[in-house]
Amino acid sequence: MKSDLDRLMQARDLVALLVVGDGHDNPPRAYLTNGAHITGGLALKRRGEAPLLVVNPMETEEAARSGLAVYSFHDLDWAQLVEAAQGDRSQATVALWGRCLERFGVPPGKVGVYGSGSINIYLEMVKRAAAAYPAYQFVGEMGMTLFDEAYVTKDAAEIARIQAVAAATSAVLEATWAFIAGHRADGDRVVDADGQPLTIGAVKRFVRRALLDHELEDTGMIFAQGRDAGFPHSRGDDGQALRLGQAIVFDLFPRALGGGYHHDATRTWCIGCAPAEVQAAYDDVLAAFQTAVAAYTEPGQPAHTLQDAVLDYFESRGHPTLRSHPSAAEGYVHSLGHGVGLNIHERPSLSHLAKDDRLLIGSLITIEPGLYYPERGFGVRLEDTFLIDETGALVSLTNFHKELVLPLRG
Amino acid sequence: MKSDLDRLMQARDLVALLVVGDGHDNPPRAYLTNGAHITGGLALKRRGEAPLLVVNPMETEEAARSGLAVYSFHDLDWAQLVEAAQGDRSQATVALWGRCLERFGVPPGKVGVYGSGSINIYLEMVKRAAAAYPAYQFVGEMGMTLFDEAYVTKDAAEIARIQAVAAATSAVLEATWAFIAGHRADGDRVVDADGQPLTIGAVKRFVRRALLDHELEDTGMIFAQGRDAGFPHSRGDDGQALRLGQAIVFDLFPRALGGGYHHDATRTWCIGCAPAEVQAAYDDVLAAFQTAVAAYTEPGQPAHTLQDAVLDYFESRGHPTLRSHPSAAEGYVHSLGHGVGLNIHERPSLSHLAKDDRLLIGSLITIEPGLYYPERGFGVRLEDTFLIDETGALVSLTNFHKELVLPLRG
Repeated sequence: MKSDLDRLMQARDLVALLVVGDGHDNPPRAYLTNGAHITGGLALKRRGEAPLLVVNPMETEEAARSGLAVYSFHDLDWAQLVEAAQGDRSQATVALWGRCLERFGVPPGKVGVYGSGSINIYLEMVKRAAAAYPAYQFVGEMGMTLFDEAYVTKDAAEIARIQAVAAATSAVLEATWAFIAGHRADGDRVVDADGQPLTIGAVKRFVRRALLDHELEDTGMIFAQGRDAGFPHSRGDDGQALRLGQAIVFDLFPRALGGGYHHDATRTWCIGCAPAEVQAAYDDVLAAFQTAVAAYTEPGQPAHTLQDAVLDYFESRGHPTLRSHPSAAEGYVHSLGHGVGLNIHERPSLSHLAKDDRLLIGSLITIEPGLYYPERGFGVRLEDTFLIDETGALVSLTNFHKELVLPLRG
Repeated sequence: MKSDLDRLMQARDLVALLVVGDGHDNPPRAYLTNGAHITGGLALKRRGEAPLLVVNPMETEEAARSGLAVYSFHDLDWAQLVEAAQGDRSQATVALWGRCLERFGVPPGKVGVYGSGSINIYLEMVKRAAAAYPAYQFVGEMGMTLFDEAYVTKDAAEIARIQAVAAATSAVLEATWAFIAGHRADGDRVVDADGQPLTIGAVKRFVRRALLDHELEDTGMIFAQGRDAGFPHSRGDDGQALRLGQAIVFDLFPRALGGGYHHDATRTWCIGCAPAEVQAAYDDVLAAFQTAVAAYTEPGQPAHTLQDAVLDYFESRGHPTLRSHPSAAEGYVHSLGHGVGLNIHERPSLSHLAKDDRLLIGSLITIEPGLYYPERGFGVRLEDTFLIDETGALVSLTNFHKELVLPLRG
């Protein structure tokens, strides 16, 4: 969590973090600014000090909502830097970095550069910064990065925001179930009161509106039916009409509007009735889900132990897995889950190949076993987002039932 | 446009473009994939050849919609690369880059790295790629980049998509006007049928829904009233109720759902009636808008000439400008416009400081003069998005009227 940042900087021998990049979709910046919506500028964190923000004069008021010290570009004589750079704003920004490091007393050493943005521009800017400010080494990192480590546990302020998103997402699952249930059958097709087929595109439009009603935004939901549901990443074909007795995988992973925390939940629904082989797979997936939850015993436990338990279970039921068949395209073909936060995929990884990741108090993770048989025309997945709370208990934040058969009322 | 890429690569002495990064919000990737929604993998363009895509096996079908050659990670033995990297996917990706460059016959030389993503990760990946594949130099660039140059003109396929977004955005402006007009006055407040005040937050919720109905997504609209409208970047206060006779700046710049082309339009509305000083400023802004349009004569013209004409006009009317008062916070405090495309801000820049940018056939630009007097409690801006069409004419794609006073019908 945020209070770990100084320790994580120390471990990397960083004297400062420089968080830069674009405004939209910039999780490290959103993390440091505590939800204030800054669309430019930079955040500077010196080791042992709170972060400070340097923003466009237009954004100082919004920036102040972060609770951090805020400086405007004017305070750093931005106009003079732009003039010196003959109007080249990237070049002026490099000079702004240097001015901030010096003005705010960052001692010589390694400066970690983080944030999301245009790769080509930042490659060149960092190269120029290194040449212009030889007292500093501007460094990146990959693998388990400083922010990845921090994200592994959430603090109380984050958890309050996360719970609100969880409740809203659960309400949208509920509303979507009710929306579909309000239709009727015409042969094996689902139709509206006028007899018009209900398409996946129409369901997605309903869901996006329902998300907005709850101040959430879609980040690419999956609503995939039949054979498409057999491919974990298929988003579903908008033009396809909903049909009775087809497995539908509905994976919803919205975030708070404007780039906040995600919630991640999946349900599998069969409208009207469930074919026996879908029901059988569903029963196995539900049992695997319960197996995973039961395999959790205490904070500090390696995350892969939950996946190991699910692999054991699925293999005992005769399903191929990525452990028994590493290139399997049928059966259980992905890992059990992942951390969730400002990014939809964070650490810890609940994969049998990620041996070092642990489940800690404050971790927010998904548990999402699934079975995929595209050649048999179906896939099944169930997913809740769980918090390991302050007592060390694994608690689901997804408040929606796990019925397979969705009956039509219309 | 895309057909310029080989020339732009030649000018930079690049043997290949490597477009990498995250899926969501990655304009260079969206540009090369012609609208197909790829969320990972890479695009490789060798000079003189069409781009090719290397994607997750789950995304080969979606990738094929690009019309480009598609390879799956399997084709490049991704599993073996991950194993060799001991599960470190960033390290495996560096090896994938190397394998692609070799497998697809890219000659030794400079490889331009583009795309949007985590800056720290790509800094480190590029460093490792440079060490592992000394035949190639992996380079970034800033300032007027290769993609910036390409974006300056749009081709016919892009223009078709752009026109659809323009029509949809115009329809949302119309719907928003009608939505507000359906309310009534209670004193100086705008209220609904039940007498409840209409807030800015409620208007934004209406607009986001209307955008979805047209398969658009909001990317941060401004709906700012009174003093807030006097700050060009203020997004407006969601809790504030709409009031009669206040200037409201409504700047809408959505894009096609999932990361397509933007349209950018601004209107200023006064509900019920307009105070004389707002009306006077509005008249000046409208005249400035017309001055800018009239200042365009032919393709190839420097873009700053339109801004110069507007500066002359505003200064003749006694308003401070960024030319007469470079740090002005009142008057005309921004440039006249910018290119629009997959990014909301592209080149050309219609700034008096950008002397090299030109208006060309196929350029898509905004014209958006404004006046800002926060201490007097108002701001005014008008903006259309214009195309320079194949005949060389400057044509507005924003199909909505420019009335200042929005009368209530309720």
